[in-house]
Amino acid sequence: MLQNDLILRALKGEATERTPVWMMRQAGRYLPEYMVLREKYGFFERCQTPELACAITLQPVDLVGVDAAILFSDILVVPQAMGLEVQLIESKGPYLPDPIKTAADLKRIRVPEVTETLGYVFEAIRLIKRELNNRVPLIGFAGAPWTLLCYMVQGKGSKTFDEAKAFCYQQPELAHQLLQMITDTTIAYLQEQVNAGADVVQIFDSWGGLLSPDDFEILSLQYMRQIVAALHDKVPTILFAKGAWHSLDKMAATGAQGLGIDWCIDPVMARKFAGNQVTLQGNFDPAKLLSPIPVIEKEVEKMLAAFGPGRHIANLGHGILPNVPVDHAKAFVHTVKNYRHSK
Amino acid sequence: MLQNDLILRALKGEATERTPVWMMRQAGRYLPEYMVLREKYGFFERCQTPELACAITLQPVDLVGVDAAILFSDILVVPQAMGLEVQLIESKGPYLPDPIKTAADLKRIRVPEVTETLGYVFEAIRLIKRELNNRVPLIGFAGAPWTLLCYMVQGKGSKTFDEAKAFCYQQPELAHQLLQMITDTTIAYLQEQVNAGADVVQIFDSWGGLLSPDDFEILSLQYMRQIVAALHDKVPTILFAKGAWHSLDKMAATGAQGLGIDWCIDPVMARKFAGNQVTLQGNFDPAKLLSPIPVIEKEVEKMLAAFGPGRHIANLGHGILPNVPVDHAKAFVHTVKNYRHSK
Repeated sequence: MLQNDLILRALKGEATERTPVWMMRQAGRYLPEYMVLREKYGFFERCQTPELACAITLQPVDLVGVDAAILFSDILVVPQAMGLEVQLIESKGPYLPDPIKTAADLKRIRVPEVTETLGYVFEAIRLIKRELNNRVPLIGFAGAPWTLLCYMVQGKGSKTFDEAKAFCYQQPELAHQLLQMITDTTIAYLQEQVNAGADVVQIFDSWGGLLSPDDFEILSLQYMRQIVAALHDKVPTILFAKGAWHSLDKMAATGAQGLGIDWCIDPVMARKFAGNQVTLQGNFDPAKLLSPIPVIEKEVEKMLAAFGPGRHIANLGHGILPNVPVDHAKAFVHTVKNYRHSK
Repeated sequence: MLQNDLILRALKGEATERTPVWMMRQAGRYLPEYMVLREKYGFFERCQTPELACAITLQPVDLVGVDAAILFSDILVVPQAMGLEVQLIESKGPYLPDPIKTAADLKRIRVPEVTETLGYVFEAIRLIKRELNNRVPLIGFAGAPWTLLCYMVQGKGSKTFDEAKAFCYQQPELAHQLLQMITDTTIAYLQEQVNAGADVVQIFDSWGGLLSPDDFEILSLQYMRQIVAALHDKVPTILFAKGAWHSLDKMAATGAQGLGIDWCIDPVMARKFAGNQVTLQGNFDPAKLLSPIPVIEKEVEKMLAAFGPGRHIANLGHGILPNVPVDHAKAFVHTVKNYRHSK
């Protein structure tokens, strides 16, 4: 039914005529067409107005020619739906004025009825699916429970999230209670995204790499495992835990069909760690898109050769930077689309 | 001659009766005695006044009982000596108002005569050695050329240092010219630290982990290799490239006697990657020092068991956090000192 199902086939491990490609944060600030809407509407207004979320989601499909759309939204809509105030100060990042610190704080939040609190997301998905008209698949997403805990406890971005870690180390029972509440909400949220039409879902664990391998299992992976299991019979899932190269084998064992890879691991080593039963997605250094176009072309071809044919979705190793020229983003996508693996 | 030479023996690969221990940033804000001096004197005043640098360097030796002193200074004294203005705004981090962006900017800096520009450091080292009176060794240090380039180009701290990376990707010749100038300065600087009395030197590559494995070789390791070679016949060197687990084998092959390890790699895996001919230093998660003391004790013992006896220097995986209670830092050190490996 989909005209371009390359990404779905790559996730199933089927052969594809070429490597599929999309870019994390592809609907974002590097696109002048996005900036027009960003100047007119506030961040949550853009997320919560299905027509705006739809228009933004479609921009990179129409303008850059990627092989998938990804829902325009934010991982922090989940803490918001759980009852926590989330402000998004443009160019400064998220700010949660009343973060979770104590057992009493935990009583302020709940596992919400997602159709009531996040209905605007599912409405956006239905609209996007209609507008996409089966051109490419739509990727839904959510933040990993650990990454959401980081913001819900620390209250803002951080290099180390040491307050979030201190919370987990000092009050482990409370931390696990919170992680389970986020997990339950996320499962319901992603299931409804799928019911509304999402063809794939990706879990973003942006801060998984701040944990030791043991703590990653305890504080992050055991909750992502629940999410993957809950979606397993519905759609393929992609786990992207930035920096958590040490647990690629365990992440592959969750049953996730795809694993996101950042640029700080060599593709050959990533494949060795992850095994052969999972599709790898990545791993171009987003800052390298600031290189001259001929360098980008050469480096993208090097990356594609290193991943080899099959079980690979080309992507960046993290979100595209706002100051990347659109032509450079296009060069990335076009180089992947024009590349053919030598037999 | 040294009363406690555990760290030197561990770096040589000799057997030691127990694992030696120190902490990165051990002379720092978690110590109330340091805060007294911090309130009275500006940052560079503390670095540039040998009596203050000496007093601060000795505090953790006297108060916490670590097995080495590390010079109180900052990696940014090198760019400063090269002719770049560096401001250090307390609790906010470094700010370089006129960063390097062009070939013309590069003409504003030079490889300085270190005895003229950094004489205060060598004077501090001589004073510290006298005051230490051979109780424990003194560790000198410098920033890795790549990490210094990050600040010299970006002009301030950053999560991604994308401006520094763009500089390297867009103007590679200029970047390598700058890296070589920093390397030449650093070699002279560390050699003079050794002449003044430093028993060991550590190279801090705080931002090495932001690079892909290939770029780490090109932009960081080839310069650190020059530094290790220049010091090889004088004192042991420790390379600490945070996040660069993928190149532990290459770092071991530089001839460095020690490799710093962060907490995001399991000690057994770190040993496997680094081989058996190098001493590993690390790797306790600094945020874990915020745990209750019994948890710290248990986790430290787990770490020591995982590294095993010999060729290990216990340390944190990054600098100690300012909000760690002194008792917790002491618990870390004491647990290491009291631990005996089972035969």
